This record gives sequence, C-alpha cells and structure tokens, in this order.
Amino acid sequence: MHQYRSHSCAGLTKADVGDTVRLSGWVHRVRDHGGILFIDLRDHYGTTQVLCDPDSPVFAEVEKVRSEWCIRIDGTVKARDPELVNAKLPTGEIEVFVRDIEVLGASKELPLMVFGDQEYPEETRLRYRYLDLRREQMQKNMILRSDVVSSIRKRMWDLSFKEFQTPIITASSPEGARDFLVPSRLHPGKFYALPQAPQQFKQLLMVSGFDKYFQIAPCFRDEDPRADRSPTDFYQLDMEMSFVTQQDIFDTISPVIGGIFEEFGGGKSVDAPASWPQISYKDAALKYGSDKPDLRNPIEMQVVSEHFAGSGFAIFAKLLEQDGTEIRAIPAPKGGSRKFCDRMNAFAQKEGLPGMGYIFWRERQEPNSTARELKKWIGNRMVDEVKLQEIKEAVVKNGFEEAVEVIEQIAALIRDGDPLDIKIAEAKQRLYYPGAGELEAAGPLAKNIGPERTEAIRQQLGLGVGDAAFFLGGKPKQFEAVAGRARNVIGEELGLTDQNRFAFAWIVDFPIYEKDEETGKLDFEHNPFSMPQGGMEALQGDPLDVRGYQYDLACNGYELVSGAIRNHKPEIMFKAFEIAGYGKDEVTKRFGGMVNAFQYGAPPHGGCAAGIDRIVMLLAEEQNIREVILFPMNQRAEDLMMSAPSEPLSEQLMELHLRVIPQE
Amino acid sequence: MHQYRSHSCAGLTKADVGDTVRLSGWVHRVRDHGGILFIDLRDHYGTTQVLCDPDSPVFAEVEKVRSEWCIRIDGTVKARDPELVNAKLPTGEIEVFVRDIEVLGASKELPLMVFGDQEYPEETRLRYRYLDLRREQMQKNMILRSDVVSSIRKRMWDLSFKEFQTPIITASSPEGARDFLVPSRLHPGKFYALPQAPQQFKQLLMVSGFDKYFQIAPCFRDEDPRADRSPTDFYQLDMEMSFVTQQDIFDTISPVIGGIFEEFGGGKSVDAPASWPQISYKDAALKYGSDKPDLRNPIEMQVVSEHFAGSGFAIFAKLLEQDGTEIRAIPAPKGGSRKFCDRMNAFAQKEGLPGMGYIFWRERQEPNSTARELKKWIGNRMVDEVKLQEIKEAVVKNGFEEAVEVIEQIAALIRDGDPLDIKIAEAKQRLYYPGAGELEAAGPLAKNIGPERTEAIRQQLGLGVGDAAFFLGGKPKQFEAVAGRARNVIGEELGLTDQNRFAFAWIVDFPIYEKDEETGKLDFEHNPFSMPQGGMEALQGDPLDVRGYQYDLACNGYELVSGAIRNHKPEIMFKAFEIAGYGKDEVTKRFGGMVNAFQYGAPPHGGCAAGIDRIVMLLAEEQNIREVILFPMNQRAEDLMMSAPSEPLSEQLMELHLRVIPQE
Repeated sequence: MHQYRSHSCAGLTKADVGDTVRLSGWVHRVRDHGGILFIDLRDHYGTTQVLCDPDSPVFAEVEKVRSEWCIRIDGTVKARDPELVNAKLPTGEIEVFVRDIEVLGASKELPLMVFGDQEYPEETRLRYRYLDLRREQMQKNMILRSDVVSSIRKRMWDLSFKEFQTPIITASSPEGARDFLVPSRLHPGKFYALPQAPQQFKQLLMVSGFDKYFQIAPCFRDEDPRADRSPTDFYQLDMEMSFVTQQDIFDTISPVIGGIFEEFGGGKSVDAPASWPQISYKDAALKYGSDKPDLRNPIEMQVVSEHFAGSGFAIFAKLLEQDGTEIRAIPAPKGGSRKFCDRMNAFAQKEGLPGMGYIFWRERQEPNSTARELKKWIGNRMVDEVKLQEIKEAVVKNGFEEAVEVIEQIAALIRDGDPLDIKIAEAKQRLYYPGAGELEAAGPLAKNIGPERTEAIRQQLGLGVGDAAFFLGGKPKQFEAVAGRARNVIGEELGLTDQNRFAFAWIVDFPIYEKDEETGKLDFEHNPFSMPQGGMEALQGDPLDVRGYQYDLACNGYELVSGAIRNHKPEIMFKAFEIAGYGKDEVTKRFGGMVNAFQYGAPPHGGCAAGIDRIVMLLAEEQNIREVILFPMNQRAEDLMMSAPSEPLSEQLMELHLRVIPQE
Repeated sequence: MHQYRSHSCAGLTKADVGDTVRLSGWVHRVRDHGGILFIDLRDHYGTTQVLCDPDSPVFAEVEKVRSEWCIRIDGTVKARDPELVNAKLPTGEIEVFVRDIEVLGASKELPLMVFGDQEYPEETRLRYRYLDLRREQMQKNMILRSDVVSSIRKRMWDLSFKEFQTPIITASSPEGARDFLVPSRLHPGKFYALPQAPQQFKQLLMVSGFDKYFQIAPCFRDEDPRADRSPTDFYQLDMEMSFVTQQDIFDTISPVIGGIFEEFGGGKSVDAPASWPQISYKDAALKYGSDKPDLRNPIEMQVVSEHFAGSGFAIFAKLLEQDGTEIRAIPAPKGGSRKFCDRMNAFAQKEGLPGMGYIFWRERQEPNSTARELKKWIGNRMVDEVKLQEIKEAVVKNGFEEAVEVIEQIAALIRDGDPLDIKIAEAKQRLYYPGAGELEAAGPLAKNIGPERTEAIRQQLGLGVGDAAFFLGGKPKQFEAVAGRARNVIGEELGLTDQNRFAFAWIVDFPIYEKDEETGKLDFEHNPFSMPQGGMEALQGDPLDVRGYQYDLACNGYELVSGAIRNHKPEIMFKAFEIAGYGKDEVTKRFGGMVNAFQYGAPPHGGCAAGIDRIVMLLAEEQNIREVILFPMNQRAEDLMMSAPSEPLSEQLMELHLRVIPQE
C-alpha cells in the first residue's frame, strides 16, 4: 500500500465497502458521540467520515488529535446506516473504521478556525494565510483563478496565439504609474525597474515579426493604498497582433472573454459577444456617466437643458447661461415615490452636491390639506369672505377648479342658513376626486418650471406614473461621475439592474488629449501610444477633437479590458508627443527602445490587456481583490506572513552602494 | 477586402491563381532580373514571391522599397512556370503580380541583415534585437520555447495539477544566491526581494491544503557574469505534491519531461521514462565524475587503486599511502593510439593537472627503429662488435629475442665474407614479425608497473586491442570533476557519445551535509529543506553519512531537474539546522514564513523544479542561453535595447529615502 494514501478523501464509495484503505488529510473536526470519535478527515478533494470506537487498538492515539492536525489512518470501509447517509457528500454513503493512525503533522493552538464560517480580521487571515487558504471558499476561489487562467491560455492557443515571457527586470515602462526600482549591483548608482506592463515589449515583438502574442503577465506598480487593488502587482492577459484593425481585435478577444464568463459564470446569462455594443466614449459619459457603464442597468441619461433654459427653476436657468454647461436627467423607472427621491437626494448630498433635483409622476390624489381646510370651514358654518377667497385659491392651485363653483354654492347656502348636506356631498365629489387617477408630476422642481416644461421632460424621457427623474447640472466633467454613481444606485435600489447577467460593451473613440482645466495644458488622456483616428492629418486640427483607436471593454460596471491600435509611425508619434509638450529628445530618452525600433520597418499593430484579478473577482462574486490572490500584501503593502519588506543586511546595502537616509 | 491582408505570406497556393489578393509583410530581399523586380515578401508565417514589371502602375513606388521595409501589396496570383516552381516553399508554385503598394513602415539603413547567415557581434544583435529576432533561426527558437512551455502546461493539467502564481515582490527566499532587492517607498529603509525560486511559497501551498501545484515560474538571482546563464533571471517548471514519496515524484514528472523531448526532440531517440536509471550521488561521482552524467557516453570509470599500490609507478604508489586517496581509471574503448593518448594528456595539463597517465593496448608490430638500424648495419657488411652488441640489446629490449640468434649468424657470415641473402631473409622474418598481432600494452605507465599489473587492469576494465585507459589519482574530490570532463572529451572525440539520443538518469541519495575541507565546518550540501533519509534518528549519527531524499534529473550532461522530499517536521528541521550551526532563532528569522506554518499540521510533501531555458537550449541545440530568450541581458546584466539599468531621477531616490554612495 502507498505510504500515505490508497484513496483521496473524496474517493471512497459504497463499492469500496469491506476494503482496507489508507487515507491522509487534515482533521476537519472531531465529535464524540457516546464514546465513539467521529472525525471529518479532509484533503484538497473532499471529506470522509472516519470513526474510532474504544475497541480500536489506536483509540488512545486517536483521542489525542485536534482540529487541523495532519494524519494518516488505515481502516476498513463500512456502509453507513441508511438513515445516516449524507447525500450531499460524494463519500456520504460510507465511513471508515480506524485501525491505525500516524500523526504526520501536529498543530499548535489555532489562531483561525478552518471549520465553520467565523470571520477573522484581515491581518489574522493574512498572517496565517496557510490556515485561511484551507477554508472551503478560499480553496474554491484559488481553484477558480487557476482554472480561469488555464482556460484563457487554451482559448488563446486555439486562436494560434503564442505565449512569450517578456522581461521582468528591465527599464521603466511608460504606463504613468510609479515604478518599483531594483538597484543594480554591477552598475552602482543605476537601477532597473519592474515593468508596469509589457507594453513596450509586446510592441517590440510585433516589430520583431511575431504575429499573435499573448502573455499572462505580471504588472508591477508602486501604488498608494486603496482597498480594491493590490498595492504592488497584478496580472493581466496581455495580447497584441500585427496587421489588424480595431474590429479585428474585438472579433478576436470578445469570444475569449465571453467564453470565460460562459464557462465560469455559474449559469448567469452572458451577452453573446457578437451583440456587444460599441459605444463612443462621449456617449458613454452622457448616457451612463462612466466609461465603464453597467449595462445590466437599463437607465440611459439624457440632456434636458432646453427644458430648463429660462425656466422658473433659477439655479439651472442661471447655470445654463454659462458656457459649456448642461442639465442631464437620470430617468428612474419605478422610482416615483417621495421617499425614494429623498433618499437619492441624500445620496447626492453625501457625494458633495447641494442636492439633486427631481420630478416624479403619480396618479392625482386627494389634496389632503385643502380638503382638511374645507371640512373645517364647512363645520364652522360661517362664511368669512377672506377665508372663502383663500380656500378658493388653494383649491384652484391644487388643480380642483371644478370644485370652485360648488364651494361658492355652499358659501351661499351657509349665508342663507339652508341645509348643506347635498351640496357638501357634491363638493366632496368634486374636491376629493377631481381628475383622480390622472397623471400628476410631483416635487418642487416641477412646480418651479411649470406643467408644460415638466410634461415635455416626461415625454422626452418616456416616463409615466410611478416613475421619477433626477437632474444634475453644470459642466459635464464636474457632475458626470456623480451622475454615473447615482445611476448605479438607482438601478440597484429599484431592482432594475439584472443581477443574473454579465453585460458587456466596447467603449470606443477615446480622446487622445485632455486639457487640464486649471493650467490649460494639454496632456494625453490615456496612453500616448494609440494611433489617432485620421493619422497625421487629424493632428493638424484641434487636439481636443482628436479621437484615438483606443478602446475599453466594460462589464457590469468594471473595466475588464483596455487596448488600442498603436501609433507605429515615428513621424506621427513625434507629432503627437509634440502636441502634449514633449520634445523629440525627451521621447527618445523615455521610450527609446520602442521609438528606435519603429524606424526599422514597423508593422501596423494593436492589442489589449484584460485584468485577470478583476475577471476572477467578478466570477467569484468577491468585492475584495485579496480574496482571489493566494498570498496578497495587506493595504500597507506588507506581507505579514513572510515579513516583507524587511531591513536589509548592511553588506547588502554596501554591495549596492546605497545608504538609507534617516527619517526625521 | 481586409485593410492589410487577405492571406498570410504562407497562404497562397495554385488554387488561388487568378485571384486578386492582399499581402502584408517585410521585404526579405529585392532582386532585379532584367528590369523586373522580384521581392520575397516575408511575414511570421512564410514567404511569397511578389513581382513588379515596368507595366505596373506602381513600378516607381515598388522600386523605392528596401530590405525590411514593411509593406502592403495588392496583386494578382499567377502560376509560376514549371521550371521556376520552388518545391521547398509552400507558396513555391505561385507568384503575385503587384498592382498596388502601400509602405506601412519604412526602414533606416540596417545595422543587421535579416536575410542571409551573416554573423554579428552579440552587442549588435542585442541592441537591435527586434531585427535579430526577425531571422529565421531566432523565430524558430522563440516559437519552440513557446510551444515547449505550452506543452508542459498541458501535460501538467492532464495530470490534474493546478497552476498558481506565487508572489514576485516578496521576502528573500533561501536559495543561497544573491537576492535582487526592491526598496519600499511606503516603508523607508525596508526592502522587498525578488524570489530566487518559489520554494517557500510552494511549500506553503502544500501546508494550505493544495495537493498538486505547478508553475512556470520566473526566478531571480543577482548572479555574477557567466557565459552560459542569464545574470538576472530564469524560468523553471516548479512543482510540488502532498502525501508523496520520492518515487511518486519520479513517476509523475518523468513522463512529462520525457514527453517533451519526444515531442520536440526532432526525431532523436529518447530513453523511455520507465527505464531511466536511478544512480546514487556516490556512484555517479565514481563512475561519471559528475552528478549530472552524460549517459549517451557508455564510459564508466572504475577504482583501480589495488593495481598501483606498491607498484613501480612511484607517483601513484606514494599517493596511495595517504588517507582517502584513490586511483581511478577512465576506460577509453577505441582510444588506443599514442596520438589520442597524448592529446588527452595535453587536455589534463590544460585542466591544471601535471598530466594523465595512460596505457593503451595494440597489436604487437614491427619495431621500426630497430629494423632500420639493422638494415643499415647489414648494408655496411662490416661487423663492429660494439655496434653488434647494441643491436642485440635493442632487439631484445623490443621483444625480438628470437632474432638474436640469426643476427649473430649474420655477423659471422659478414666476418667470413660469405653470401648473406638467405640469412638476411631469415633475420627479417624473425625481426619484423615475431609475435605480431599479439596484444601489447604500450605507454610508460605500463612499463613502470610491469606486465602483470597492466594485464590485471586490462582485465578489470574489459579492454582489448585498440583501447586505452587513463588514470587519475588523489583525493576523489580533487580530481573527480576533471575526470568527468575527461570522460566527456573521450566519449565525444572517440565518437562513443551518441549524438542522436537524449539519455536520462535520476541521481539520488545526495548527502545532506558537506564539510569544508579548510575550516572543517559542516554546511548543507545543497538546500536545507530536504528530509534526511531515516529522519531524526539519522541525524544522531555522523552527519556526513546522512543522505537526503533529494534528487536531480540529468540529461546528456546537464542537470534538468532538481528536487526533494521536504523536511516538513519542525523538530527534525531545527535539528538539521543545528548540525549546520544555525540556531533556532536564526532559522525562525530567516525562514519564519515556512517554519511557522509547519507548526500547524504540515503534510509530508515534495517536488522538483525543471529548468525551462536549459530544456529549450537542449532541444534547439543551442550553446548560448541568449539564443532561447527573447530579450536577454548581456553578460554585464545590461539591456542595451531598453537602456537598463539607468540612473534614477533624484525624486525617485528621495521617495525611496535612498542615497547612492559615490564611488572612489
């Protein structure tokens, strides 16, 4: 028999009953039922119930084992009594009677239980990651990650892509974040950098004549702490192709990503890759307030400036007198309640806005306060002409014009001392239900702009009873992001966002440049290596009008993929840099490896990179990136388990010709 | 039609004749045959002959293109004349008449030609790597590497291994080489390290309950320059399994490695994995002078001390009087010529030895110098008694005793003036061929030890006519390596080493400790994490006798794989370190991550790592590791193309709280 196991802990079935077997694994838990010890023995594959009665020659030894001890047992397979069969477990029909035991690895007292669902502080989990990883959910997440990466590789190979490893110890790569530096011992005072992405190398591969490259590539960025990202590194599916257009990249990578979500999406619906819309960056900002819109949410925002220009809502009317301002509406189907609208208003205030205007549409109902006033007046049976006038105005203001006549008749009857009952009934009818069930726009904004504008807005947005709309105004850049977040909250709170779907869209036509509002300086909006649409000619016009062959893939509100057709022509590249204020010398100095290469017959090429960690997070339904990484850093970029970073030996610093500057 | 290509440059055949096609690629070369321009247009997939006659509307433009320009052409496919068909090319039956051309990327003057076999200095090749990589052999090598890595992954997946990425920015890993350090910005004065191997992490994965791990893992070592290795990093197939014995590891990984060599070995014979011998470290040193023997070479060395003890060969006889010395023989079948033996002696001198004793065996032949002397004397027809005596002695010395009598008779005839002819014929017969064809041991060593010892050696080594043996003596550690290299040279020079074979062997039973000859201090022979055979008990005896469950796989003289069953028991690990002089505190400090983990139910586990670069080198038949790496560093650890390492910005150093110490 094998030294450690004849079967895994998921391997035994009724067919093995009567056999002598050997199992190894961890003690998941021990229970004592009337003197008989029940052990759930767990390995990577599953769990087997093992038991030991006082007749066993090793009972005394089995009695000693505790949770998470690693043991080897020999025993006999027995069928469980029918009423004790556990149908949920592959091994649920059997149990193993222990005849021999060997402690392979005992355990100290556990700082973290593997069995059960107890939550632990993240620091504890990371310090004892080897225990944390034994837990079922973590095993599942890591296997999912491994399987996703394998599947990506298989899919890329099937498309005739070759995987190449590009250098990790290299020069700085121009991705705009902070590099990790690596001091060179052989060249004192000089440093290598870890690549922020294999960007330059993959482009160099295309110049080197390779046609279809991919890599599951580690990327290194010295980031400031943030909850949802690793402070040191992440993995991406990096790919590049030669002699391709933007559409070729979409046609190639969409089925790969779509296929992964089909394969690992746990049965959620996945939009068919051929149906993924292409939405311009500009439209995405307008309709969704985001360049990574969540299309599970059907809400699309619209510009409604015309309805507010010169309207009675002074804040918006004045705003629109400034250049470059706009009012946008976020339609909120089924959001038509004051309670919901107030909650969204509070959301806007939490986001730092003064509030968020809204209109909601409802069925016209009894105007309670007016009705109450009227009842009081009728009860008085005394006509005060001033009061009468007030009531008539209130009634009119609340849209009960038809009640005015009967109110005057009641007043006459009171003055005359005549019986009121019939008239009162008539007044009630006209007052309480006039136009009831008809569409009514509510909220202060509607009153300020009046019914016509309100109705025009309603018609533009296609809303009706029970719906609402929220309004934000100003320069789009200043409120777009909040509007996008409001759209997300609205979609989720109203149940509009389909939780069982992966919805994808390509966002295209990113601008090449953006202007710093304060300094007025132009800079690259994203990455400087994208080909401008229209090439050299486009760069002669207004830079802010130049769009690039640059694209992102959004899924459920996340950016999953980012890419571009590259600017492979040195003269266009130098011009593009010149516009952003970078001279030829600086470009050559910073990106020399690639820029030089482009002067020796560079092919047109393009590609993209997909975030592995994020894909796995989405598939695992995890919110924290550390749940899908084996041995992550904490948010202070420390590995508590391995004690990294740590102080170097002074010999090491000497060899590197470095001195640490003491901190004050 | 697609913007760049309707077909690849390997895609057109006779079936496409008459079609209008679009191709993109590089101008491999241009020839002008009687005013018609012939262009070999090359892409990643192949080459197509493209031609342009002066009638073409774009002749003037085609005339401008030069080698390595990247172009797009439109044209018509025509069949080649039968006598111009190139059967070696997939596209050899057709050519394309150019009707339109677009220059996608022009090229400056080339520092390195892609076409042809011209050799360039390595510095040029690395600086313009993107041109170098366009060359056919480099494309092949990189594709081979990519395919080998893919195939390894598929094979590991098929065995139910999961691939996991372990951290790259982490703490120092204890592999004994120098770490690359990465300064931490968030923790001034502290450093991360790049892993020398994922050793600790893969063991932690086993403690975390994963069962079968592998990774194509980058490993980082700050190495001093050496021709045959990268000065910064390399890749390995890293694997680990839980609940396994050494034999399990062999049974798992042998078919993977063997399969790769079958798949990519270009038809060379590959020893069947089940037949790979297991050779103890001790036997390997003795028989092959190496722990990575080349078993394509059938030579096995043997100890022959007994034949030299007290013999007439004073050097060896004296040597053997010292403790721990040995004489070993390298048999050299078919090496039995003085010329070869002298060449090997010269090799030994080049290796720093005074020389290498040898014996070779031949058929007894005519002793030419004696025969010549005799002819001269007979021609004189004058008897000089001194000369006669000399001749007789020479004849005897050369083993021609039977000739002495007839020589004396000739001398008498000369003295008497009698006719000599009959006697001369008789002398010739006795002189020229006495004992001819019999086995004769030659070389000074044979004479020194005499025929009996010489014959005993011959019988022990199983040699015969035409064979040789070389002898080295001393303390084995001091000459084993040279002996091993001599064995290699002998095998190759004599054609004994089968060049069409991949021969594998597992080397097992490595010692855990070695003693520093000078200081007498014990240290780990290899890596401190291997389980000693015999466990704690074995550590109570002589440490130098302790063998580990530690093994290497040798192939054709290279170490391809190295691994061990790990020491997963904290108490045995602490004891093992104690013997090597490391206290508990130091062990905990240096390897805390792993040692702590072992105290929480560690499973028995083991694994190995295979060198990817080396496997690809063997398969590509390359001698230089840089031929199988895309963008390698040069031997001074510089990337000439990307200009790494380089001087950091002073802001970067400030952020890291570092100062470079100026060099004197």
